[in-house]
Amino acid sequence: MPVRTVTTRTAPDPEALEAVADRIAASRNPVVVFGPEIGRSRAWDAGIAFAERLEAPVWTAPFSERNPFPETHRLHAGVLPAAIGPLAGRLQGHDLVLVVGAPVFRYYPFVAGDYLPSGAALVQVTDDPDAAARAPVGDSVLSDSKLFLEAILPRLAQRAAGIAAPLRRPPAPVDLETLPLAPAAVFEAVRKVCPQDFILTDESPSNVPAMQDRFRIGTPDSFYACLSSGGLGWTMPASIGLAMAERKTGRNRPVLCLIGDGSFQYSIQSLYTAVRQGADVVFVVLQNEEYGILKAFADFQGTPNVPGLDLPGLDIVSLARGYGAATSLATTAEEVGTQVAAAFARKGTSVVVVPITRKLAGLLG
Amino acid sequence: MPVRTVTTRTAPDPEALEAVADRIAASRNPVVVFGPEIGRSRAWDAGIAFAERLEAPVWTAPFSERNPFPETHRLHAGVLPAAIGPLAGRLQGHDLVLVVGAPVFRYYPFVAGDYLPSGAALVQVTDDPDAAARAPVGDSVLSDSKLFLEAILPRLAQRAAGIAAPLRRPPAPVDLETLPLAPAAVFEAVRKVCPQDFILTDESPSNVPAMQDRFRIGTPDSFYACLSSGGLGWTMPASIGLAMAERKTGRNRPVLCLIGDGSFQYSIQSLYTAVRQGADVVFVVLQNEEYGILKAFADFQGTPNVPGLDLPGLDIVSLARGYGAATSLATTAEEVGTQVAAAFARKGTSVVVVPITRKLAGLLG
Amino acid sequence: MPVRTVTTRTAPDPEALEAVADRIAASRNPVVVFGPEIGRSRAWDAGIAFAERLEAPVWTAPFSERNPFPETHRLHAGVLPAAIGPLAGRLQGHDLVLVVGAPVFRYYPFVAGDYLPSGAALVQVTDDPDAAARAPVGDSVLSDSKLFLEAILPRLAQRAAGIAAPLRRPPAPVDLETLPLAPAAVFEAVRKVCPQDFILTDESPSNVPAMQDRFRIGTPDSFYACLSSGGLGWTMPASIGLAMAERKTGRNRPVLCLIGDGSFQYSIQSLYTAVRQGADVVFVVLQNEEYGILKAFADFQGTPNVPGLDLPGLDIVSLARGYGAATSLATTAEEVGTQVAAAFARKGTSVVVVPITRKLAGLLG
Amino acid sequence: MPVRTVTTRTAPDPEALEAVADRIAASRNPVVVFGPEIGRSRAWDAGIAFAERLEAPVWTAPFSERNPFPETHRLHAGVLPAAIGPLAGRLQGHDLVLVVGAPVFRYYPFVAGDYLPSGAALVQVTDDPDAAARAPVGDSVLSDSKLFLEAILPRLAQRAAGIAAPLRRPPAPVDLETLPLAPAAVFEAVRKVCPQDFILTDESPSNVPAMQDRFRIGTPDSFYACLSSGGLGWTMPASIGLAMAERKTGRNRPVLCLIGDGSFQYSIQSLYTAVRQGADVVFVVLQNEEYGILKAFADFQGTPNVPGLDLPGLDIVSLARGYGAATSLATTAEEVGTQVAAAFARKGTSVVVVPITRKLAGLLG
Repeated sequence: MPVRTVTTRTAPDPEALEAVADRIAASRNPVVVFGPEIGRSRAWDAGIAFAERLEAPVWTAPFSERNPFPETHRLHAGVLPAAIGPLAGRLQGHDLVLVVGAPVFRYYPFVAGDYLPSGAALVQVTDDPDAAARAPVGDSVLSDSKLFLEAILPRLAQRAAGIAAPLRRPPAPVDLETLPLAPAAVFEAVRKVCPQDFILTDESPSNVPAMQDRFRIGTPDSFYACLSSGGLGWTMPASIGLAMAERKTGRNRPVLCLIGDGSFQYSIQSLYTAVRQGADVVFVVLQNEEYGILKAFADFQGTPNVPGLDLPGLDIVSLARGYGAATSLATTAEEVGTQVAAAFARKGTSVVVVPITRKLAGLLG
Repeated sequence: MPVRTVTTRTAPDPEALEAVADRIAASRNPVVVFGPEIGRSRAWDAGIAFAERLEAPVWTAPFSERNPFPETHRLHAGVLPAAIGPLAGRLQGHDLVLVVGAPVFRYYPFVAGDYLPSGAALVQVTDDPDAAARAPVGDSVLSDSKLFLEAILPRLAQRAAGIAAPLRRPPAPVDLETLPLAPAAVFEAVRKVCPQDFILTDESPSNVPAMQDRFRIGTPDSFYACLSSGGLGWTMPASIGLAMAERKTGRNRPVLCLIGDGSFQYSIQSLYTAVRQGADVVFVVLQNEEYGILKAFADFQGTPNVPGLDLPGLDIVSLARGYGAATSLATTAEEVGTQVAAAFARKGTSVVVVPITRKLAGLLG
Repeated sequence: MPVRTVTTRTAPDPEALEAVADRIAASRNPVVVFGPEIGRSRAWDAGIAFAERLEAPVWTAPFSERNPFPETHRLHAGVLPAAIGPLAGRLQGHDLVLVVGAPVFRYYPFVAGDYLPSGAALVQVTDDPDAAARAPVGDSVLSDSKLFLEAILPRLAQRAAGIAAPLRRPPAPVDLETLPLAPAAVFEAVRKVCPQDFILTDESPSNVPAMQDRFRIGTPDSFYACLSSGGLGWTMPASIGLAMAERKTGRNRPVLCLIGDGSFQYSIQSLYTAVRQGADVVFVVLQNEEYGILKAFADFQGTPNVPGLDLPGLDIVSLARGYGAATSLATTAEEVGTQVAAAFARKGTSVVVVPITRKLAGLLG
Repeated sequence: MPVRTVTTRTAPDPEALEAVADRIAASRNPVVVFGPEIGRSRAWDAGIAFAERLEAPVWTAPFSERNPFPETHRLHAGVLPAAIGPLAGRLQGHDLVLVVGAPVFRYYPFVAGDYLPSGAALVQVTDDPDAAARAPVGDSVLSDSKLFLEAILPRLAQRAAGIAAPLRRPPAPVDLETLPLAPAAVFEAVRKVCPQDFILTDESPSNVPAMQDRFRIGTPDSFYACLSSGGLGWTMPASIGLAMAERKTGRNRPVLCLIGDGSFQYSIQSLYTAVRQGADVVFVVLQNEEYGILKAFADFQGTPNVPGLDLPGLDIVSLARGYGAATSLATTAEEVGTQVAAAFARKGTSVVVVPITRKLAGLLG
């Protein structure tokens, strides 16, 4: 028993709550944006109920470091782009944007434009006073996500269902034959052999859109990334910690970490810890021998050919074996599938290194 | 219309609210401590309703910089001392201490002892996460005072009235004849001529208990002090600002500022602003020609005769006139009454200087 | 005897010293700028010897908080203005600017221009690494002023005397009759009755040029001001401390503090300390009932009529008497002379308040 | 040509210099301690002349990150231990300790004792005002090392030679046969095959005494380490930078980096840079599969068996090959010699991994 307790959740100001309910009732065509606080406040079910009561599309906020909503749900519209103009473009046609559990918004890079489409208003619910203070548009309500959603739900009328078919297109077809494989092909090959329950982590910045397109996560607490700060080097040790926590809590889900060859270098020493601790992590290293996200950024800025962004000659198999991980090189989609499946079956720490094409995705996906 | 809004109040976690209601229901003999957040959140009426529902004694938290509860109410028990042992002594016999809108607690000086009487538990409600984090005892609920009180009231049963007569003794008798006057005599003489509605401010640290005994404030938003930090020099300019705000808002209450001759020196230049702005402030300067609170502290620490604490030879009448204030010297209780009454009648900025006895009050009142 | 010692002076790099000596030898027409470090390093005599060896004009660096060179010396050219263009203008015709003991340079306000006249080079000697680092032009030698001057003197040839008559014009004629008096008239009346040895302090920012024109100080350690930061409120308590130090060291020079009525308000409480300590300070308060330097600055910026810069209605005689100082009001030049003379004769702390004309001097003198 | 110059060296206060010269003349038995500022100020020759003028023993200051004095010189007495009591013990019998270019002193760990032997005084010369301020004993003179030494040398009389034989014992005999090799055996095997001119770097904390005993460096600018802060991870990238600087300046000395298997992990990624840049560095990795210095510290503190200090299972050969370095495993002294010789001959970046005994040296050597 603790010596003393301090509450860590706060509920919304009731007047503000009523005002939001009124604005929703008056809205012609609302849209929902859910962010990572949904995960931290364990509001997964409340979020689904809220979305279904509104029968509104649900977007995942840009750079959400945790998954807030089932990406397999027919109302899920996708992940918002992290750029002012393009983001507003996705919200076109809506008169009310309801953001729950996210900053408004994480933007990178800067793309000029209006924060919101013409005619739209925005309400933000966040438990972070700083995020409330610095939002450039909208009215902010300070509250825990779950307490907000549970408090407002009884005040909302059920809206008529207007969205029958899933909002999101199925993943784009992918070429599994051409070598080196494209990132999407690797993700497809990996995805097919994943177990029922697993945790996905990601630090392959230039391939985020392809990853989001392939891996549509339908369960809570199943995705983690360092997208919020953009700092590299977090995901490897975090994946190991997640695997250790899964074991300690008895959930025992393995962790799949998708990581670039550059990202893999920041905290490569953590692989030793993973091996010594017997952490159930499968690292899939996408090796394009370059610092892709910075090349994409240089292209975006109109300053291509920045020096120092090539990473040739790294023998990642040798490195991973040096730390004691079960390691293999997979060149074809079939090898990827076979080796990742074996890694999941084997338990413990594995590394599958996959050479990929150097064709850059654009910075905005 | 503002460009955007951000809520500034948060409500309590409903689960925590229920737990507090249950603890109150189970309590044999609760006691209430109200603090300055009550004033800031405009919870005056809710606080009275709460106290009357519980039929429990109400203490003002130590060093409350705003008045949270009518000191004329039969349930008001007084102001808690700001020292660990003595404070716990006042709460003896209670099994549940309900603190709303205050840190737990402001202590000065250090007096060893238990934080709570034996057998007592404590619940703190505060809107300040730092205050919640650093409370040494009790369970803390993060919430705006008013939202907490309004939310819990419907959950509380009416307790049987057990306190018929006022809890607080009437002010001690005072000698109005002996010169120089004692601080209590000055306060009594001043109090008698105060108008119906006024604001009291205070920066006469060594005379706080005598002030609290004489001035029992029954209306909200009527007392302000810098007791929370102990820093001197705040009250003169704050009094002027309050008077200007009263004029601007049309409430037009005059300000009575009780201030020591030492305190009067810290921001003496603000008197010029008061005069130029025509602020309705009556400064009553208690002149004992010493730095009384530090002498009391030195006595308390067993290190008397600290040098540099005497302030002889200050002609405060000359100083105040230099800045243009209507100024007079009052030596007797009658002069005090006459001159303060005239000051209130005259409007604008006045200074009444009153020589007082140097007999020290003890540091703990 | 101290437990341990640490040297606080550093000598110049010998190679750099030689280089400076060579540059002086090669210079056709050098000019000297002395700053406050000369005072701190006790290099008064060395500075005179250096100037006379070079037979070069000596300027006092802008905003020097201590006097570095006899202002009565035929080689003294005056005080440099604190503005880029005007300062360079004063140095016109010289090919080498030798700055000893000063930043390069304190500028206020910004006046665009070249840092140096065409064809001129600059050498700075300073004991402050930060000042050396941030000088915008010239070559900096890190050294104590005195150690530099003593080390370079034997390396310098005596230059032919070319400056027979004093470089500086005598003080401008002054009108002692018209009332209210101009600042220059006050200074002239005061100067005439000053004792042989005294310390001058100054915090009357809008009258600095007039003060510098009248008071030409010929002895070391005789002028102190807070010109270096521009912060007001330093000079009153500093004057008192200087007087106490003079008494303690047996030099017993009185302090003359020239101060504006606005400046007088910042630390007015220190007057009480002066009186209680019996410090020999004569405060001459120039009362123009306005915040002159800011009005001058507003004019300079082309934004006249800034509100809040008038200070009418201050009865400074009453204020100073309130703190116990011997105080009088002097309206005419004769009264100024008589009262200041009496103040010096009387010892202890005196205040002479002198109403002056509101005619603004320009910001650049 | 630079736009402007700022001197970076300061000479000593001449008075302080005279005082030091007088103290040296009066000293019966002085001793010299040289530190890393000697290297930075290029005072190698001046330091030798100073020592030979005094005919005094010369110690290297504890944790000197650069070599200040030829360790092959008959006057070199060794490296002082970094502990209060033991250090004073080494200076026993001297009446004057002359420290040039070092803090007084770097201590780790804390071993109680007197700072100096009884009857000894200390003079410190340093260019670092912070080091001067915080020295716990002695008189500090602020100066560049070279400028101090050159300035004092003409003031010093030649002392009679009293030290004929080298002060320092030859390296202890070493067992080259027993496997795994002891660190001293590895160093001996390496030392024999080193080229005439090379740079030594070191980050094998638990083997510093053995390294210092074997590698006695007789040339300036030939040893670099991060001993001053104790932070690990500096030496690998620093070695690479040194090799690149040697190439750029045309001196072309190769770098020998002695490094522990734990230290090798901190910045292991820098090996990739070394390989890509073709830096001439030979890394000799001493693999004892433990964090030796912390085990030694735990023993010293009487808290042995701290968990988490073993490093089994690192395949360093595989890691180094992963980054592209020419890598080999050397188990015997002969293999060490052969492989290190080949590495020097081959040019470019090489790694020789040597398993060593786990027998701990004591923390104080």
